[in-house]
Amino acid sequence: MALFHVRMDVRIPHDLDPDQRAQIVAREKDYSQRLQRSGKWRHIWRIVGQYSNISVFDVDSADELHEILWNLPLFAYMEIDILPLTRHGSDIRAQTEHTGVSAGPAGA
Amino acid sequence: MALFHVRMDVRIPHDLDPDQRAQIVAREKDYSQRLQRSGKWRHIWRIVGQYSNISVFDVDSADELHEILWNLPLFAYMEIDILPLTRHGSDIRAQTEHTGVSAGPAGA
Amino acid sequence: MALFHVRMDVRIPHDLDPDQRAQIVAREKDYSQRLQRSGKWRHIWRIVGQYSNISVFDVDSADELHEILWNLPLFAYMEIDILPLTRHGSDIRAQTEHTGVSAGPAGA
Amino acid sequence: MALFHVRMDVRIPHDLDPDQRAQIVAREKDYSQRLQRSGKWRHIWRIVGQYSNISVFDVDSADELHEILWNLPLFAYMEIDILPLTRHGSDIRAQTEHTGVSAGPAGA
Amino acid sequence: MALFHVRMDVRIPHDLDPDQRAQIVAREKDYSQRLQRSGKWRHIWRIVGQYSNISVFDVDSADELHEILWNLPLFAYMEIDILPLTRHGSDIRAQTEHTGVSAGPAGA
Amino acid sequence: MALFHVRMDVRIPHDLDPDQRAQIVAREKDYSQRLQRSGKWRHIWRIVGQYSNISVFDVDSADELHEILWNLPLFAYMEIDILPLTRHGSDIRAQTEHTGVSAGPAGA
Amino acid sequence: MALFHVRMDVRIPHDLDPDQRAQIVAREKDYSQRLQRSGKWRHIWRIVGQYSNISVFDVDSADELHEILWNLPLFAYMEIDILPLTRHGSDIRAQTEHTGVSAGPAGA
Amino acid sequence: MALFHVRMDVRIPHDLDPDQRAQIVAREKDYSQRLQRSGKWRHIWRIVGQYSNISVFDVDSADELHEILWNLPLFAYMEIDILPLTRHGSDIRAQTEHTGVSAGPAGA
Amino acid sequence: MALFHVRMDVRIPHDLDPDQRAQIVAREKDYSQRLQRSGKWRHIWRIVGQYSNISVFDVDSADELHEILWNLPLFAYMEIDILPLTRHGSDIRAQTEHTGVSAGPAGA
Amino acid sequence: MALFHVRMDVRIPHDLDPDQRAQIVAREKDYSQRLQRSGKWRHIWRIVGQYSNISVFDVDSADELHEILWNLPLFAYMEIDILPLTRHGSDIRAQTEHTGVSAGPAGA
Repeated sequence: MALFHVRMDVRIPHDLDPDQRAQIVAREKDYSQRLQRSGKWRHIWRIVGQYSNISVFDVDSADELHEILWNLPLFAYMEIDILPLTRHGSDIRAQTEHTGVSAGPAGA
Repeated sequence: MALFHVRMDVRIPHDLDPDQRAQIVAREKDYSQRLQRSGKWRHIWRIVGQYSNISVFDVDSADELHEILWNLPLFAYMEIDILPLTRHGSDIRAQTEHTGVSAGPAGA
Repeated sequence: MALFHVRMDVRIPHDLDPDQRAQIVAREKDYSQRLQRSGKWRHIWRIVGQYSNISVFDVDSADELHEILWNLPLFAYMEIDILPLTRHGSDIRAQTEHTGVSAGPAGA
Repeated sequence: MALFHVRMDVRIPHDLDPDQRAQIVAREKDYSQRLQRSGKWRHIWRIVGQYSNISVFDVDSADELHEILWNLPLFAYMEIDILPLTRHGSDIRAQTEHTGVSAGPAGA
Repeated sequence: MALFHVRMDVRIPHDLDPDQRAQIVAREKDYSQRLQRSGKWRHIWRIVGQYSNISVFDVDSADELHEILWNLPLFAYMEIDILPLTRHGSDIRAQTEHTGVSAGPAGA
Repeated sequence: MALFHVRMDVRIPHDLDPDQRAQIVAREKDYSQRLQRSGKWRHIWRIVGQYSNISVFDVDSADELHEILWNLPLFAYMEIDILPLTRHGSDIRAQTEHTGVSAGPAGA
Repeated sequence: MALFHVRMDVRIPHDLDPDQRAQIVAREKDYSQRLQRSGKWRHIWRIVGQYSNISVFDVDSADELHEILWNLPLFAYMEIDILPLTRHGSDIRAQTEHTGVSAGPAGA
Repeated sequence: MALFHVRMDVRIPHDLDPDQRAQIVAREKDYSQRLQRSGKWRHIWRIVGQYSNISVFDVDSADELHEILWNLPLFAYMEIDILPLTRHGSDIRAQTEHTGVSAGPAGA
Repeated sequence: MALFHVRMDVRIPHDLDPDQRAQIVAREKDYSQRLQRSGKWRHIWRIVGQYSNISVFDVDSADELHEILWNLPLFAYMEIDILPLTRHGSDIRAQTEHTGVSAGPAGA
Repeated sequence: MALFHVRMDVRIPHDLDPDQRAQIVAREKDYSQRLQRSGKWRHIWRIVGQYSNISVFDVDSADELHEILWNLPLFAYMEIDILPLTRHGSDIRAQTEHTGVSAGPAGA
């Protein structure tokens, strides 16, 4: 299992046809919700005042994350930034609960 | 209730006394874990390969977040970056579960 | 109550229809003035020589701020930058006047 | 009258003598509060999670602003960023109340 | 009196109609020269190899500077960067000659 | 299996004791070579003219990569930048040879 | 022989004709695979979540690298960033295997 | 004759001996005023709120400018940024007055 | 005589008419070669993998450099970055050979 | 043969012993001049107003360039930026004179 922090900034061109835009956005929502239900798209938050989200993915591998992102209906209109995550040494939750690695060094 | 995304990058000077450093790091861990248990420091992840964390806070107000961060034992040695979060329109969880606002616009 | 500092930089495409542009700008002015009268959009200043403003919002929550910004008539043509604010320890005004938190640390 | 938006980021070296530091910070607070009472330092807010403030000055001239900033007790330890402000065309307050210029163009 | 340092970078879209472009540039020249004759646009230099200028304005207030810049015929096609200036403590000219403030601290 | 592209920029303080420095650098070399022999540190190149390297790691998980990097003898003196990699759709090598994912989209 | 690290970020305009786009991408794949078979394009990896690749070229000279890159079918739509590489002093492989230079200084 | 726009940002280390600092600053002032009297350092302004100046030099050549800057008493503690200037096509002053070149293209 | 280092990055819009583009590029080559023969455009190199060049100009003045650059057939499609050069104190060539200034300080 | 454009910015710490500093700078000058005489360090210019140089190297390989730079007496105190160069299609000199590659594409 692998955790990734992903920020997506949406940049849809102003001259995109409104119907096409609405369809893509609807497919994006459906795609995201299916992955949320599967447990792979574990968190999604809107950044206040931005057409952007912060998400956390819990996938089998970086390869699987790539397949998911590459097929986002809005992929062509996004800037995506990825940070691989691991368990923090100060995290109070039992390690097996999310990444399976032994507790690393503590401190912020 | 208010959600904030916080990135903390730790920059401890190389010439800090090792004992002092160990004490500060230990106090930081204790401080963080108390806030995690209270539910206010909801998530903490280590960024792979970095002396940095990504955290999500669930606090009563931005004022409370400031009090928490300002009193971090490592505060003087950190660069902190904050993003206010809100519910994403595609989030499958019921709204009342985390922010209490009505569902906003969907799409990534 | 929550205070937010917001900078808005307007980037209207040169080829937007002039009538459409005039309508959006007029709606933006009306929208802003209604929120100013309600007390939520507490300050708005023009940055000299820029098609940009600096604003201070006094809202119930970050969620409410998001609703306000997301519905700005010019939202699609703006870059928005947000900083959460809190009371400064050197502020001479009584705390209850604006944020309700106890006085924090002093110094610039 | 002239309005200026000023952001001050404080960078006190870690090895500054604690007594000297406390004295400078105390003088800074006193200096700031005297200017707030005179009406010249009109607003001061703490940025959440940062050793930084956002201030608005209402001075006779840029020359006076320079005298004020140059003599800040913490001046040598600050990064200062300045934006001249003017009345926004959508501001609902009567013009004479703060800058005296005629209402400029509206829109965000 | 107030001195401002202004850098203007011109970014005219490649597809602007050549006649319209020529008219705007001619109006810009006329506008600039009238302000130079009035003494308000005190200096204008071309940056070598750039479609950019460095200018110094000597105006009654930041408000007046804003009125001047906002009405530049090329305003919509410019990026503008402003620095407020004051007398330098090493300047050999008598203070009354340009800003009227007392001589400030010396040194570069 | 997971592939990661890692850039390491070394910033050893000028005043570090030369013997201590030599010891750390020797331990770093030994540590790197053991991981190269295990197959986990698959590539290491020096960037011409820089005290920096470009490396490719082939590890079981991002968690394992973190353990490896966090324990580098030079970790405290490095800036590290990480990119997760996956198979390129134009790669001529059989997929099973390195990542095990099905061939993704082609094109650069 | 000379080794170069190349990052290519693809930025195809949204309004490019889909057939033309498909043809260019197909020619790019063919061009890349011929060079991979010749041994000159030694590695190509996809960056997870990005329309970008990381490649390593093993060519006779920088001149030859330029000829290869300049003739990429997608060249007009790419941002390319190049780092010359050399053997790392900690690399466990025999020097003659890839660059032919004597082993340089060790350490990361 | 050649005109250069120079911005100097002064960064004196906090631990420099105060007497040494005062001596260097005094020599800097003397050096600057001699060059102002010679006509080579034509303008010097303080940037409001910054330990920085904007200057204009009128020298025989870039070589002479280098000699002047390299010998500034504060040179070791400055960041210097240089822009070569030429006559602007909209400048109302006769060309011979300052650079001697024929009037170039007009427009901002 | 004055030496200038110039970097030119070419950004021709994708939708420029191919014939017009070919004509401009041909005129650019002719213009450049005439200036090379005159001795004013002393060096021109292609940056590997970039539609960019590094050039060195040897002109009478910055004014002349501006005239040359402003009239480049590709000027409207270029980003240009300029550094004035002078003789290096370690240069082994006799000073009169290129800039005429006395040897300055040595060291890199 | 391979051409490389190298920019070196010197950042000697203020507290380096003056004698040690003078020795390193003298060794640097000697080292540079020997390489200039060998023809490998083909050009060296001082950037006006900066403790920086622009150099062009003509070496057998990137590996040789690395050996040269890594052994610069000032290496530990420099930031170095490298661009590989190739013949420009508009260069009027015969190709064999400097890189030996066939003439590439013309245009700036």
